[in-house]
Amino acid sequence: MKKTLTHVVPIRWDDRKSEIVWLDNAQIPWKETYISSRDLDRLIKAIKGLEIRGAPILGEAGAYGTAMIANNSSNSAETILKDVMRLGSRLADARPTAVNLSWGVHRIQDSVRRAVENGEKPVNIKELAISEAKKVQEENVSATHKIGEQGKRLIHDGDVLVTVCNAGTLACDGLGTSTAPMRAAWADGIRFRVLVTYTAPLYQGARLTAWELNKDGIPVNVITDNMAGHLMREEKATAVWAGADRILGNKGAESGTVYNKIGTYGLALMADSLRREGTGVNMYVAAPTSTIDPRSTVQDVKIEQRKPKEVEYLFNGVRIVPEGVGVLNPAFDRTPPNLVSAIVTELGIAKQPYNASIPALLAKEGSMVKL
Amino acid sequence: MKKTLTHVVPIRWDDRKSEIVWLDNAQIPWKETYISSRDLDRLIKAIKGLEIRGAPILGEAGAYGTAMIANNSSNSAETILKDVMRLGSRLADARPTAVNLSWGVHRIQDSVRRAVENGEKPVNIKELAISEAKKVQEENVSATHKIGEQGKRLIHDGDVLVTVCNAGTLACDGLGTSTAPMRAAWADGIRFRVLVTYTAPLYQGARLTAWELNKDGIPVNVITDNMAGHLMREEKATAVWAGADRILGNKGAESGTVYNKIGTYGLALMADSLRREGTGVNMYVAAPTSTIDPRSTVQDVKIEQRKPKEVEYLFNGVRIVPEGVGVLNPAFDRTPPNLVSAIVTELGIAKQPYNASIPALLAKEGSMVKL
Repeated sequence: MKKTLTHVVPIRWDDRKSEIVWLDNAQIPWKETYISSRDLDRLIKAIKGLEIRGAPILGEAGAYGTAMIANNSSNSAETILKDVMRLGSRLADARPTAVNLSWGVHRIQDSVRRAVENGEKPVNIKELAISEAKKVQEENVSATHKIGEQGKRLIHDGDVLVTVCNAGTLACDGLGTSTAPMRAAWADGIRFRVLVTYTAPLYQGARLTAWELNKDGIPVNVITDNMAGHLMREEKATAVWAGADRILGNKGAESGTVYNKIGTYGLALMADSLRREGTGVNMYVAAPTSTIDPRSTVQDVKIEQRKPKEVEYLFNGVRIVPEGVGVLNPAFDRTPPNLVSAIVTELGIAKQPYNASIPALLAKEGSMVKL
Repeated sequence: MKKTLTHVVPIRWDDRKSEIVWLDNAQIPWKETYISSRDLDRLIKAIKGLEIRGAPILGEAGAYGTAMIANNSSNSAETILKDVMRLGSRLADARPTAVNLSWGVHRIQDSVRRAVENGEKPVNIKELAISEAKKVQEENVSATHKIGEQGKRLIHDGDVLVTVCNAGTLACDGLGTSTAPMRAAWADGIRFRVLVTYTAPLYQGARLTAWELNKDGIPVNVITDNMAGHLMREEKATAVWAGADRILGNKGAESGTVYNKIGTYGLALMADSLRREGTGVNMYVAAPTSTIDPRSTVQDVKIEQRKPKEVEYLFNGVRIVPEGVGVLNPAFDRTPPNLVSAIVTELGIAKQPYNASIPALLAKEGSMVKL
C-alpha cells in the first residue's frame, strides 16, 4: 500500500494473527481503540454498532469479513465456498441498506467461487480471498491518493479552508476524499489552516474530521455551523472543501449537481455571496468517479429525512427542543452546479460547464462509472 | 400595560405580595417555573445564575430590584435613600458588564432621591419607586408593540420566516423585537410558519424562541444551523428576521451595519445568494432605536470572543471537540448594510441607503438616541 500521509488506518488485515483490526469509530474522539477479532459475530456487532462506518469502509469490512470467513473455514474447498456463501449473506445483512457492505461481500464470494472452480487448494483459496480483500482496500486507498494529487494544486500557502462533515479517512480510507487534497498539499510543504464545521446534528465535523486532521498535524479550528459565514470573511477563507454522496453527471443542465451532508449548500451559498463581493471563496467538491450518477435527475433524487430525535436531543445529551415543537431533519442537501467551482476526482478536475466536463471524465480509462 | 399578544411575562411586580416574580430562564424549555421573592440576595443570585437574562429584562430587574429595596426599607425617608444607594450598588454589580442592569438601578435611585428631596412621605417614596419601575417595563413593552405594528406589514399570508437566537419576550419583554412583527401579524390573522435555527453553541433559538412562539400558537420548526440554506430554498422562505445588539447609524457608508448573534451574517449571505437567483428572501432586522449607535464605526466595534468551553462541550453535555483541537467562539457577527433589506424600529422602517434613512429616524420625536 502507498504511503498514506495519514496516521489513521481505519481497518486492516493482520497477517500474523489472521484477524481484522478496526478503529472503533463510536469512541472517536474520546478514545482511540483498535479492536482485533477473527469472530464473525463480533464483526457484525461492530458494523451494527457503528464501530465500523462510512460507505467505502463498509465495503472493505464486507471484503475482509468474507475473507475471514474463508480463512476460518475447514480444509475443504467445498466447505469454504459453502461457508463464504452462507455466512457472507449474514455479514451482508448487518446493515441492509449499505450497498457497499454487500458489494464487498459479493466480491470475495465471487473470488472464492472462481478459485474453487479453478480447482485451487484450500490454503490457496484462503490466501486468494485475503489478497482480493486487500485489493479492495488498495483500490479505495489509491483513488483517494489520486484525488489528493489532482486536488492539491487548488490549495496554496496561506489558504484558509472550510470543511463540512467527515469525508476523511474514517469514512473513505486512505487520504479521505475532501481531505485528500489537503493531505497531499501538506505533504508537499504547502501550509494552510482548516476551519472544521460542527455539522449538527451528529457533529461528524467536530468529532471526526478535526480529530483526523489534528493527528496529521494540520492546524484545525472547530467552529459551530452558524459561525461559517462570519469566519469565512474574518479569517479570509479561500475555499470550502466538501465530499459528495452523489453527483449528477448527465449531459443536461443539472450535471454537476452535488448531493452531500446537510450544510454543504449553505456553505456554497455563503461562498457565492462572498465571491460576488470579490472575497474569492471557492467551492470545491472531491469524490471518486464512482460517486457520479450519470442517469438520475434532480427530480429522481429524494433527500433522506432522519429521525426527529437527532435534532431534539444534542448528541448523546440533553433535550434542546421544547416538547411539542416540531423539527426538520434532512440529512443531505443539494448544491446546484452554478455554485460549484470545481469537482475533483481521481481522473481529473471537472469545471463548469459540467455537462461537458463530467461526461469527458467518465469517458476516460479507469472511470468507475460510464455514461 | 397593553395587551401583549404573548403568554409569557418574564418579570413583574406582585402588588399584593410586594415581591418580584420572574420566569426562571435557566429552566426553559424544560420547566416553566415562576419564582417570587422580596429578598435582594435571592434576586442577585437569580441574575448571576441567568434565571433572569437579556439586556432589556436586566434593566427591568435593576429597576424592580431597587424599588423592592425601597419598599423593604424602614419608615424613614433618609434610610430609604441610604438603602437604595448602598444596596442598589450591590444589585448593579451582580453582572458588572450588563449596562442595562445598572441603568435600571440608577433610574430608581434617581427617582427616590428626587422624592426625598421633594419631602415626600416614606410611603409615597416607596410607591413612587415601584411605579417608576413599572414605567421602565411599560416603556420596554411599548417599544416592542410599536416594532410589531411597524414590522407586521412586511409579513404576509403563507410566508416562511427564519429566525436566529432569541430576540423574543424572554430577552426583551413584551412582544420581543425580532418576534414582535410576527406576533402583531399573527394577531391580525396573517398565517405563516417560522423556522427557528438552533443557534449554537448556546442554542437560544431551539430552547427559547421555539418555546415562546410555540406557546403563542405560531407554527415553528426547529432546524440545526447548517440546515438553513437548504430549507430556505426547499421551504420557500420569504424572510430572515433577526434582532440586533448594535446597529451603526452615522451618515457614512457603514450606516446600517448590524451586529447580532453569530449566525446572522451567514443567514444574510445565504439570503443574498438566494435573492440574486430570484428566490426573494428578505433580510429584516428589528430593534428599538436605543440599539442604534450613531457614533461608532466598524473599526471601533470589537466582536466578543467567548470561552472555548462553550464550543468544546455541547450545551450541558458531552465534549464534542477532540482534546488538543482549538476552537473559535465569536459571540456576534457583523452584517454589512448592503445585505440588510430593512431595519424595523418603533419609530418606523429604515431602508437602504441607511446613511439617509437611519439619521432620519433618529431625528424623529421619541427617538431614544440622537445623532
